[in-house]
Order: sequence, then C-alpha cells, then structure tokens
Amino acid sequence: MSLLVFGSTALDSISTPKKKNPRLLGGSGSHAAVAASFFIAPRLIGVVGTDFPKKYISLFKKHKVNIKGLKVRDGKTFHWAGEYEVNMNNRRTLSTELGVVDGYSPVLPAAHRKLKYVLLANNPPGAQEAIIDQLDKPKFIVADTMDLWMNVAMNDLRSLLKRVDMLVLNDSEARQLTGDDNVVSSLSKLHKYGPKYVIVKKGEHGAILSSKKGLFVAPAFPLAKVEDPTGAGDSFVGALVGYLAKNAGSIDANIRKAVLYGSVVASFCCEGFGLNRTTKTTRAEINKRLRELEKMTSA
Amino acid sequence: MSLLVFGSTALDSISTPKKKNPRLLGGSGSHAAVAASFFIAPRLIGVVGTDFPKKYISLFKKHKVNIKGLKVRDGKTFHWAGEYEVNMNNRRTLSTELGVVDGYSPVLPAAHRKLKYVLLANNPPGAQEAIIDQLDKPKFIVADTMDLWMNVAMNDLRSLLKRVDMLVLNDSEARQLTGDDNVVSSLSKLHKYGPKYVIVKKGEHGAILSSKKGLFVAPAFPLAKVEDPTGAGDSFVGALVGYLAKNAGSIDANIRKAVLYGSVVASFCCEGFGLNRTTKTTRAEINKRLRELEKMTSA
Repeated sequence: MSLLVFGSTALDSISTPKKKNPRLLGGSGSHAAVAASFFIAPRLIGVVGTDFPKKYISLFKKHKVNIKGLKVRDGKTFHWAGEYEVNMNNRRTLSTELGVVDGYSPVLPAAHRKLKYVLLANNPPGAQEAIIDQLDKPKFIVADTMDLWMNVAMNDLRSLLKRVDMLVLNDSEARQLTGDDNVVSSLSKLHKYGPKYVIVKKGEHGAILSSKKGLFVAPAFPLAKVEDPTGAGDSFVGALVGYLAKNAGSIDANIRKAVLYGSVVASFCCEGFGLNRTTKTTRAEINKRLRELEKMTSA
Repeated sequence: MSLLVFGSTALDSISTPKKKNPRLLGGSGSHAAVAASFFIAPRLIGVVGTDFPKKYISLFKKHKVNIKGLKVRDGKTFHWAGEYEVNMNNRRTLSTELGVVDGYSPVLPAAHRKLKYVLLANNPPGAQEAIIDQLDKPKFIVADTMDLWMNVAMNDLRSLLKRVDMLVLNDSEARQLTGDDNVVSSLSKLHKYGPKYVIVKKGEHGAILSSKKGLFVAPAFPLAKVEDPTGAGDSFVGALVGYLAKNAGSIDANIRKAVLYGSVVASFCCEGFGLNRTTKTTRAEINKRLRELEKMTSA
C-alpha cells in the first residue's frame, strides 16, 4: 500500500532563547512525509517557489519521498517565522508569507488518485477536502488541523470532518472545537462531527486515541532536552499513518503501535531544529526507542 | 506489615464554579489514610480540635483507619478554604486557619515506632523529620511536600530529603525545587538530594517514576468529569504506599503496580467533593478500574 501526504512545504525561520535558525525545511507536509518515510515511501503533494533550495529536494529524495506531486510555481516558497519562549510550550508567530501558496489549488497526478492511505496534514480545510474530491476509493483518510482554521474556516472544517476516518488535533484545539473544557468528554463530541478515530495530542504528556475499541492513553517519549518542538505534531501523525499504510490490514489491530511509533518519531523531531535530527535517525534507532518506551510504560 | 501515615487532618471548605461545600473532611493525612485503607489498615498520626465532627471519626473507623495517634487538642481543627476556577487546574486559597496545628509536635505512640512503611504526607518538613527521629528501623519512608515549604522552609526540606527513600511532588514543584524547567532532566537533580525513588505527579497527565530501574511513565485514569481535585495527590500517594505496605517485599517488584493503584484511587477522589466519592468506593471497584486502565495503556 502506498501513502499520499498532502501538506505545506515551507521554509521555517525558528528562534529559541538559545539559537536562531533561518530558512530551515519545514511545513506540515515536509515533517509528515519524512516521518512516514521510515515506514513506507510516501508521495508528497504540495507547492514550492523557485527559491526552494535544491538541498531540500535532495533530502526528500534521500528519504525516498516521491515528489512528483510537489509543484514548483514562480514566486517564493511559503515562509513562516516563529519564536519560542524558555519553556518551549509557548511560541509566537513573527511573520507568515504565503508566497506561492496564495492561489494554489492542489491537483493530484493520475497515479496518485487510487492511493488507499491518505494523510491530510495541516492545511486549509477547503484544500484538504479538494484532495478528497480527487480520490478513487480511499481506504483510510487522516486529517490534522489547527486552531487557525477554527477561527477563519469553521464551515470548511466541519464539512471536511464528515469525510475523514481519523481526526488528529491537540488538546487546546479539541477544547476550542467542541467548547468542552474536559478533553475526555470532548472526544464523544468530536466523533459526532464524523471521524471514527480521534487522537488528541498533548505534547510532552502524550496523546489519547479514541475509537469504538475504547481509549488508548499513549505516552510521549520522555526527553531531558528539547531543542525545537516545531513539526513534532506533524512528525507524530506522519509516522503513525506511515506505519498503518505499511502494515495494511486491520486499523484496529495496528493503531496502538502506530501511535507509539508516532510518539517516538516526534521525540527525535524535538531534539533538533526543523528536520535536522529527524533526518539523521534510522529505523533501527526508532525501533530501539520504541522498545524503551514500551519498557517505560509496562507495569 | 503495617503503615504509618503522618499528615494533616483538616476541615476543608471548597468552592467550585458549580458548588460550595463547607467543612468537609480534608487534609493530606485524611486523604492518604483513607486511600491506603483499601489495601491495609493504616495508623494515622495527626491532631484535631474539639470541634472535629464525630461523623468523621466514625468514617475513619469504618475504613479501619487506626486513630490512636490522632490527638485531640483544645481549640479548633485546622481549616482551609479554597476556590477552583472553571478548568480545575487553577485554585486559590481563600483562608487558612492553623487552629490546633499551631504549636503541635507529633509524638508517636510506642506501638507505632517499629512500623516499617511510613508515609509522611504533606506537612511542614520539620514535623515530617520529627517523625523520622522517632522511628525504629523503618524499611521504606515516603515523603510528599508542596511549594509552600520550598518558600518558607527550604533548609528543613533539604534536611528531610536526605532521610527519605521516596519523594513525591508535582511537576511545578519539581521545577521550583531544582530550578530546571524540564521535568525529565530535573529527576537526576532530585535524586541527588537523597531519595532513591522520585515520583513527579502531573495531575490529569499522570506521573513519572524515576529509580535505578529507569523511568516508569504512568497514566492518569481519564475522567470525563472532575468534580473536585482536592486531595487527589494525597490519595495517589496513600494508595501507592498502602499497596506497597500490603505487598511487603521488593519495592522494585511492586512499585509500578502501586503507582497505577495510586492513579486509580486518585481518580475516584476527583469524582466527588472532599472524600465523598473515595469513601463510597470499594476494593472491587478499584480493581475493575485498574484493569480498565491497564487495558487503556497496553499497545
């Protein structure tokens, strides 16, 4: 089974109290596709400008990320600049330049339309739904989202949610979307919007998966040092769906291990700026950390 | 093996946005002893005033909490009044009246001095250490504490920590005590203060146990409704130490299951005001919820 990943492909300029790193490879699609690549060769859909560095194209190729659906348009690549405070839980956006994303409508190459596993990484919900419109009998569609779309595109988001199998969002977003302050009780409301599977991410506190099989309370991998959490959520869902796509079969049989792999790949993401640490890891290192995580959570 | 529990025995007046409940049975010792009582008959050390309601004495007796070491002094029982905000993570103290706690020095009855398992629930660290001075060859001493003592009695606290086997504190307190913003890296600093076992509580996000055997990342029991979290941390550590004392033997062999029992009993505590829900539960109900929690965390 192959995997389609639709997401943003950006240049990120990230500042923490200790370091500044301009124009790193970033975006939800980049993080998710590289994370998925440890399990399966994903096909990435997105858009970049003519300024997109060749070294990042090489990086995708090195990770066997298929970029036939990565369109190059005249203009500048989407650029995000952000700054973290000391405790890394708070960040603020310094600037957002849409560049070639402005006016871009994703079109799937014919060969991509029959892919069975589809990850709609964070992007405007209208664009995410435009991907669904082009699919031919998908098996499992996962959507990530963010608070911005609840503020500016709630109708699009509610329309999207009726058509996805799994929704992934963080705890403050779950509260915002449902108006429920309790994350656990918000889950039944989120299911009513459409998705049979819901995952609420809680950063360093792990994640909760909800489905007909009940709840799975999943740990984050404990890290003594976090260098840059940008992209951790995208890495989480990328690895998760990559594992599901690779081990095609019963979602219920694979989903819990997929969540743990998500936690592990997200932990590598946090240990370096942008994709610096993720792109240095190996499947063997990921498996080792998975075994450590399993050991740390077995009673 | 029997268990000694030293802690405060208080009357708590608790307000949430929905309800006000005056003069409930509260205090670290009350919560911890009742939580421990599901596993072993604990002996409670503390002090109350002549106004302490007889119904609470009956409640202790019903739960087989031995109160021979609960001293009655002329005057009023320690009284705490506090108020929770909507999200239950923020609370503020409205008033604290020490009453008979002022000038009280704990003296252990002779029969209590040889107890092997000792829980020093939250109390001034000087008073906690005064208990240790009276013990005859204890096997396992656990201390809970709070941010207040770091502000007003840091030297006493550092002195205490050299003499306990396990320290239990919450994540913001771990940060305050070590000056380390990262909870995971704070653990090694906390061990250097003395305790071989450290548990950092994270409320609804569970807890992390650190020992020579590595980390145990433990879940909280997911609750769709929290009525009053007062005493949840005391219930957690009370059940934990109660389980250890009952299953006397290798601490390492029992500690992870003890932490899970702590999470479960704390979850019952949160479902009612004060001890209202905890005192209505049964060991069978606790075991059922433990099995549910194990199911929710196994991959």
